[in-house]
Amino acid sequence: MIKIVYGNSEEGKAYLESLRERAEQVQGEVIKTVDNILEDIKANGDEAVLKYTQKFDSDKVTKENLVVTRSEIEEAYNKVDKEFLEAIKLSKENVLDFHERQKRNSWITTKEQGVILGQTIRPLEKVGIYVPGGTAAYPSSVIMNAVPAKAAGVPNIFMVTPPSKDGTINPNILVAADIAGVDTIYKMGGAQAVAALAFGTETVQKVDKIVGPGNIFVALAKKSVYGQVDIDMIAGPSEILIVADENANPSFLAADLMSQAEHDKLASAVLVTTSKELAEKVNVEIENQIKELSRPEIIKASLTDYSAIILVDSIDEAVEMANNIAPEHLELVVENPFEVLGEIKNAGSVFLGEYSPEPLGDYIAGPNHVLPTSGTARFFSPLSVDDFIKKSSYIYYPKTALAGVKDQIVKIAETEGLTAHANSIKVRFK
Amino acid sequence: MIKIVYGNSEEGKAYLESLRERAEQVQGEVIKTVDNILEDIKANGDEAVLKYTQKFDSDKVTKENLVVTRSEIEEAYNKVDKEFLEAIKLSKENVLDFHERQKRNSWITTKEQGVILGQTIRPLEKVGIYVPGGTAAYPSSVIMNAVPAKAAGVPNIFMVTPPSKDGTINPNILVAADIAGVDTIYKMGGAQAVAALAFGTETVQKVDKIVGPGNIFVALAKKSVYGQVDIDMIAGPSEILIVADENANPSFLAADLMSQAEHDKLASAVLVTTSKELAEKVNVEIENQIKELSRPEIIKASLTDYSAIILVDSIDEAVEMANNIAPEHLELVVENPFEVLGEIKNAGSVFLGEYSPEPLGDYIAGPNHVLPTSGTARFFSPLSVDDFIKKSSYIYYPKTALAGVKDQIVKIAETEGLTAHANSIKVRFK
Repeated sequence: MIKIVYGNSEEGKAYLESLRERAEQVQGEVIKTVDNILEDIKANGDEAVLKYTQKFDSDKVTKENLVVTRSEIEEAYNKVDKEFLEAIKLSKENVLDFHERQKRNSWITTKEQGVILGQTIRPLEKVGIYVPGGTAAYPSSVIMNAVPAKAAGVPNIFMVTPPSKDGTINPNILVAADIAGVDTIYKMGGAQAVAALAFGTETVQKVDKIVGPGNIFVALAKKSVYGQVDIDMIAGPSEILIVADENANPSFLAADLMSQAEHDKLASAVLVTTSKELAEKVNVEIENQIKELSRPEIIKASLTDYSAIILVDSIDEAVEMANNIAPEHLELVVENPFEVLGEIKNAGSVFLGEYSPEPLGDYIAGPNHVLPTSGTARFFSPLSVDDFIKKSSYIYYPKTALAGVKDQIVKIAETEGLTAHANSIKVRFK
Repeated sequence: MIKIVYGNSEEGKAYLESLRERAEQVQGEVIKTVDNILEDIKANGDEAVLKYTQKFDSDKVTKENLVVTRSEIEEAYNKVDKEFLEAIKLSKENVLDFHERQKRNSWITTKEQGVILGQTIRPLEKVGIYVPGGTAAYPSSVIMNAVPAKAAGVPNIFMVTPPSKDGTINPNILVAADIAGVDTIYKMGGAQAVAALAFGTETVQKVDKIVGPGNIFVALAKKSVYGQVDIDMIAGPSEILIVADENANPSFLAADLMSQAEHDKLASAVLVTTSKELAEKVNVEIENQIKELSRPEIIKASLTDYSAIILVDSIDEAVEMANNIAPEHLELVVENPFEVLGEIKNAGSVFLGEYSPEPLGDYIAGPNHVLPTSGTARFFSPLSVDDFIKKSSYIYYPKTALAGVKDQIVKIAETEGLTAHANSIKVRFK
């Protein structure tokens, strides 16, 4: 089912090249549409938000019911599957535990002559979380975006999500938001919701940062308001790369590749292995297992268009390939996975051994599932507490300490032609 | 010289409002120009870089001399003022010392049933630093951008800077780069240099992140390539806010306000004080001191258009105003500045007491001078080691531990309609 190529063949190289280009979609006229929506919300606030919400999502939404009420949330608790509720609570606990460990202290240092320097770390005050509607409405995503903000100490967490045609929100989303600690939920989506959070309206408070996945309109709107508010990383299509030796279980590998492939036709599932025999068995397993799955068309498209099984001569070679691809998810299904971990330079999340499949990390283990996609693990990181804090530095010099460095400051300032900078030091020692 | 307004007056409120809008410049047709340059570099590499460099900067630059040689750097050492050299070395030492303290360890945690979770922290591999040319060529800025990357452990630091008409680079910039630990310097600037770093050319290596200040072309180019590489924050016009009580020295305050104002006609210098008498004395001091300074026109424009002395009833009120403005630089010139520090929520860098003027932080103290401008201290932070690292999470579950949470994973996956995710767990327990 998946093409099998040799890593050092022309075909193999061409495939690796094509992976990089997958992320670069053209966006032409959508940008114009998004810009118009942003301008409209900025100028007309709630009125414009409601106009787009009624047009694109639901004509049941009015200014009066734009904010989800406590009783809507209580109703949602009554509607959801009890086992699901317990599972989401476990997920939240584990995610909170992992993210609590990312918290850092403000710090101070003292130097000679009474100098004090330091850095304070504080939570952002207002954060907006975007949650897609429809088939992409994932409660796990609510947990993964809101809990790190909560762990960071953000006191005001707002969520926006497009309502269904009947004006309601998926109850699984509502309970996940409540469990995660979201403070306020608005029934709005698309570029208009991003704009409302970025600029503020009569009903929606202007936030400091907007996070969360969305379609191309949402992504472009976030990119456009970046700078006026902060945003999380730019997300592209998702991928998994599995490094497996000849002892790996082909059934497990087939299942894991398909779990990535079912997300999106643009998703990419790559197996890099030293064993051609394993590669062929994996393809047989895919044929067998896909029959039982609910999204065979998406899986087939992803496996055919953007996936490959790449044959290499050694695990070292596989690791080098993984570092070049910088995958969002990296499974190391090899004899001693911890011994390989030190060689991994670029990956969003690393799954070690054959009982740590990607869905474990998507839902339950604790690390975030919001990960850098499409090779951006070279420079982006998993969503974390760091994304919900801000730092300030501070400086205290007593007079004698400043006297000790005044000539150097004046020298640099004058060399840079900034005489008012030099003057600021000189007036203090006149 | 600076207008004096009451904080709670209509005029005061209008001024505070106008400060927010200062950052929102219209960029219309410049975007088109920048996009064309980016496309050209992407398609034509070095050839296009040289075309723009020869057109905008110097027709002396060729493919052969695009990279600064070791002998050019040695020559620069011979040209620069020896006292300046010593001052820059001190600056580098202090900046390195402060940023070394920001480094964090990778970590690991073990949980019940043999579960292991953790987060690795690694330096970025390739970083590009933009350094403006001409009058904005600041060696201190080279130190502030390169040293945190060095402290983070980045092994490849590239610098781009536009050459002078004669094809050379300012020697002060060259020695600062060498002292800071820059590995390679390219003679190129503008959007073309940003594009070369983001996409790579025959001569220029593609980097993971681009940092450093630049004009509107550079800023837009950085924003445009964001996502393909990481960038530092979007910088707007710069500002200082000084909170001073009645005992502050008006001469010092006047000097500090002007040190900010000399940067740019759009710069903003704000004094918030409880004392009208002090306010008036500061204006007298400005009149006196400005005569000795080299950029009186810029200072006057900035002080007249974007600056104000705001009278408030209490230091508490001043602090609240500071938090709303979220200034890049905040000087606390009050009796017990440390007692106020805990109240500061939003500021890039805080300068405590009357012998900690802004230029101390610009050049020597150690904290970074690349700070969030124009109110973005609400969500952005000073440039730091954190900007030059990437994180990965990792997960290891033994079979028994996965067995303990398999039902919950399957439940969430199936609730989300992701049956291939559920299958990835199920196949492991068949």
